[in-house]
Amino acid sequence: MVKIVIDAMGGDFAPKQQVLGTVAALKKDKELSVILVGDEPQIKAELSECEYDESRVEIVHTTEVIGMEEIPTKAVKTKKDSSTVVAFRLLKEGKADGLVSSGSTGAVLTAGVLILGRLKGVSRPALCPIIPNHTGGGTFLCDCGANLECKPINLVHFALMGSAYAQTVYGIEKPTVGLLNNGTEDHKGLLLQQETNALLKKVEAINYVGNREGRDIMFGDVDVMVADGFTGNIAMKSAEGCGKAVSAIMKKAFKRNLFSKLRALLCGDIIKNIKKGLDYEGVGGAMFLGLTKAVVKGHGNSKARSFAVSIEQAANAVRGNMTAKIKELIDGVDLASIQAQAQEAAAGQAE
Amino acid sequence: MVKIVIDAMGGDFAPKQQVLGTVAALKKDKELSVILVGDEPQIKAELSECEYDESRVEIVHTTEVIGMEEIPTKAVKTKKDSSTVVAFRLLKEGKADGLVSSGSTGAVLTAGVLILGRLKGVSRPALCPIIPNHTGGGTFLCDCGANLECKPINLVHFALMGSAYAQTVYGIEKPTVGLLNNGTEDHKGLLLQQETNALLKKVEAINYVGNREGRDIMFGDVDVMVADGFTGNIAMKSAEGCGKAVSAIMKKAFKRNLFSKLRALLCGDIIKNIKKGLDYEGVGGAMFLGLTKAVVKGHGNSKARSFAVSIEQAANAVRGNMTAKIKELIDGVDLASIQAQAQEAAAGQAE
Repeated sequence: MVKIVIDAMGGDFAPKQQVLGTVAALKKDKELSVILVGDEPQIKAELSECEYDESRVEIVHTTEVIGMEEIPTKAVKTKKDSSTVVAFRLLKEGKADGLVSSGSTGAVLTAGVLILGRLKGVSRPALCPIIPNHTGGGTFLCDCGANLECKPINLVHFALMGSAYAQTVYGIEKPTVGLLNNGTEDHKGLLLQQETNALLKKVEAINYVGNREGRDIMFGDVDVMVADGFTGNIAMKSAEGCGKAVSAIMKKAFKRNLFSKLRALLCGDIIKNIKKGLDYEGVGGAMFLGLTKAVVKGHGNSKARSFAVSIEQAANAVRGNMTAKIKELIDGVDLASIQAQAQEAAAGQAE
Repeated sequence: MVKIVIDAMGGDFAPKQQVLGTVAALKKDKELSVILVGDEPQIKAELSECEYDESRVEIVHTTEVIGMEEIPTKAVKTKKDSSTVVAFRLLKEGKADGLVSSGSTGAVLTAGVLILGRLKGVSRPALCPIIPNHTGGGTFLCDCGANLECKPINLVHFALMGSAYAQTVYGIEKPTVGLLNNGTEDHKGLLLQQETNALLKKVEAINYVGNREGRDIMFGDVDVMVADGFTGNIAMKSAEGCGKAVSAIMKKAFKRNLFSKLRALLCGDIIKNIKKGLDYEGVGGAMFLGLTKAVVKGHGNSKARSFAVSIEQAANAVRGNMTAKIKELIDGVDLASIQAQAQEAAAGQAE
């Protein structure tokens, strides 16, 4: 039995969608149990309308909620009885194996580091969403915003953590890793990308395939795309904006007149397929990599289905021993040695 | 009569598509004349299959071509008889009013600065493509890769130049300007974005609306999106990758079986509309802003239609006095004064 603690109050549609998503996850996964953290009367009211296995559900009552607009560090330190803080405390105390929250990203990142703590050896935890891509699968984008300013070593850790995640949770044996850059040649990018590219080439534990471009996130050949948090955030949201524009254009085109509307009916499954191809909901939340336990940050506007997938991700990360794999990969890299090798290679090229 | 000099040899399908595009542009615009620069026999062979007004076409023969893989500075300096270098020289000498090339981006950027020269007062010329957006129009993204590493003053100039471009060539009266960032709040971004945001607020010549996110490029409310070249490049290509993924998914969905194929026939106009909404070809090339004359960099894989639009853009930039407007806006900004104001504002907030 895997136990996931759930921040039931975080998100635009909390706690209704969180409770519905939890019930769906419990129905699908008989080896899952949960702790729902939040306002007990509200949670019970939602649960009362569902059928579920009561023996696998606990509720922990809290009185506070961290709002999306609050300053994360301040909120985490002062709102001791908020659903987010209490959920992380329960996780830290060993009452659960993993956590899902669709609350404020800043608060989740802060509570993750301050309350739960990062894995020894990880220079910076990172947020890793899965971006739907042309294969029908997804690309692991690491980092997408937890660390705006990065050093090469941070990006090397993102590569290792993203690989461990893809391997242990999605069963991708040797995930290919690319570095998000403005071109594929070795000389491309700012100093950060140039140095990181040189280092990644020397990391034997990952399947590094070199620099990749923005278009390769959704239309490329890599499983894991590595970026500093600022660049990753811009890339993710730029792709998302395109998806939104396509949906809007498609909607408009199919609603133009009666004939268009009839055709929309006739093409319902095809439209559904296209939407599915752009579906951020279906791929669940972003894994917060580099903490001592599995933490999934769901979308702020998570609906039940997306939230259920986030719970599944957290449970699978526990079952796949993702955290141990991250530690193994990080510990296995002798940074001083790969730095020396990268410098040697650079000197060799310059000669 | 506006005269545009055309690098007929640059691009994957040169000179055929360049010649066809030129003929199309001449047909549409009776006040346009051109100089085609490149291999004369090849150009003449292509022209011989077209109907066009010979009195508006000159050919200047060249013997060299700059390849996509060549080092730009070296190529521009050594290949004196390349189509790109000769085209820029003719422009510099006043033989033409504007230039279009779909050759190597690096070579065009280098020749633009070294041969033609930048406008006095412009800290960095920038490449400004138009990204199709949900309105059916486009977003001016400035810079998309000419300057990887930028200072706030460069981004202020990009904002001014992008505004001048939108105004004079597309008739947008008070183009809204956003700064590409990882969130809309003032504290968002790296130091570069924070400082730039503070400066842009003080520039009265533009209609600055604040920080914007990646998704706002295709699904937002700004006409001009300002970014350093690295971030702009990542954003542009990430959106492009999404568009490519959508096209691929759509194609697959409509080709699944005979019934799907029949429906594709029935929905041809709708599919066309969606594709049109993502159409990078239809919006032409990227304006290379900040040089002494109008220069348009067409896509490397320009087909005739896209190339014709690029020529139209260059001609309209000449007619709209875009370059003079850029100079006027840049000269009108007292940088020392807005920097002092931004610092005062920051100090006021800190108190």
